[in-house]
Amino acid sequence: MVLLIHHPILPQCRKIRLQMSEKKILFVLKEEEPWKLSPDVYKLNPAGEIPIFVSDGQVIAGQYPICEYLEDISSENRLLPPTPGERAECRRLMAWFDEKFYREVYRNIAQEKVFKRFSQGLAPDSKILKIGLNNLKFHMEYIDWLAERRNYLGGAEFSLADITAAAHLSVIDYLGDVPWENYHYAKLWYSKIKSRPSFKDILKDSVKGILPAKNYANLDF
Amino acid sequence: MVLLIHHPILPQCRKIRLQMSEKKILFVLKEEEPWKLSPDVYKLNPAGEIPIFVSDGQVIAGQYPICEYLEDISSENRLLPPTPGERAECRRLMAWFDEKFYREVYRNIAQEKVFKRFSQGLAPDSKILKIGLNNLKFHMEYIDWLAERRNYLGGAEFSLADITAAAHLSVIDYLGDVPWENYHYAKLWYSKIKSRPSFKDILKDSVKGILPAKNYANLDF
Repeated sequence: MVLLIHHPILPQCRKIRLQMSEKKILFVLKEEEPWKLSPDVYKLNPAGEIPIFVSDGQVIAGQYPICEYLEDISSENRLLPPTPGERAECRRLMAWFDEKFYREVYRNIAQEKVFKRFSQGLAPDSKILKIGLNNLKFHMEYIDWLAERRNYLGGAEFSLADITAAAHLSVIDYLGDVPWENYHYAKLWYSKIKSRPSFKDILKDSVKGILPAKNYANLDF
Repeated sequence: MVLLIHHPILPQCRKIRLQMSEKKILFVLKEEEPWKLSPDVYKLNPAGEIPIFVSDGQVIAGQYPICEYLEDISSENRLLPPTPGERAECRRLMAWFDEKFYREVYRNIAQEKVFKRFSQGLAPDSKILKIGLNNLKFHMEYIDWLAERRNYLGGAEFSLADITAAAHLSVIDYLGDVPWENYHYAKLWYSKIKSRPSFKDILKDSVKGILPAKNYANLDF
């Protein structure tokens, strides 16, 4: 049995949960608020970051090592394609969302709307929010462009590229900020991902104090 | 033959150069200034980021996919340890430097001293610099702590954890900001890394307009 220390507002935690569900790894969740981490977290990870994965005394901290570890140990339901070149393309897209989308969209939207409120009791800065929403359009165009040309974002098969993108988008979607109507192919792609059994738990997520947007859990959005 | 588009001020480019040198992969370098990337870069990588790796028509953009690709394709001089658990520990440290050190130290020091000057013609903000230098102490303590307990940062053997840490530290060292004298074990570890043949080219690096610190290339620093 695996223990994952996580929080539903963090896309990097959602990514690992989706990956484990796809691989049919059983796990229990322990929630930690990222703006008020307990000393236990620092004992397990001196970087003071979650997710943290604990299994049989093995502790792995951080989404990147956990994600690669899970691919490393489990041959069931491989989530990276068979050739090194295709794997590189998937990892390029994973980095796109984990780094670029995170920096340009997540930090400006989720940090403003959620982190600022719970850590400092402040309202979001509308100028920063606007930058995030504007950046989101560029990312939606890119997802739309990929989804029009490929069966899945990373190539012909479902992969960690889809998981990473959906983990990030699902947080912004929870907050009601994804303009789906303007991006036909992106929407088709997301509805395909949303229907996967691994996504069920993500759609039940709730961030204390913040209700999900109306269509968040709706498969027909 | 491999072409790597890079810049010597970027630790993520130094990391890939060190990795390729350790693996005895032949490569040529093409320099691009990160504050003034040419349209070619955007054609190869819509994220507009370097390093970009080109080999036989295969284009891989971004340090994470390149780094994992190089481990994937070359069995020579593996730079990750043999078991999944040990590999996870190495990757945790790689993320430590690529994300945490980058955010807390690099952005405050190198971006202030170098990027601001070349992109905006501005002098560094001494308050931001001070934050970076202060954060650096914490990271030096952690490197010192690891180097006292382990032969190499990631474990018993030289690995990508050492390469990543040294890539990041070497940029700060070029700028003359690493307080080596206070960190005995960190200094011993770095001098071991600095003496490797793969490091030779890094020590010859020069950032146009900025001279390296006095002891940058000195093996006895």
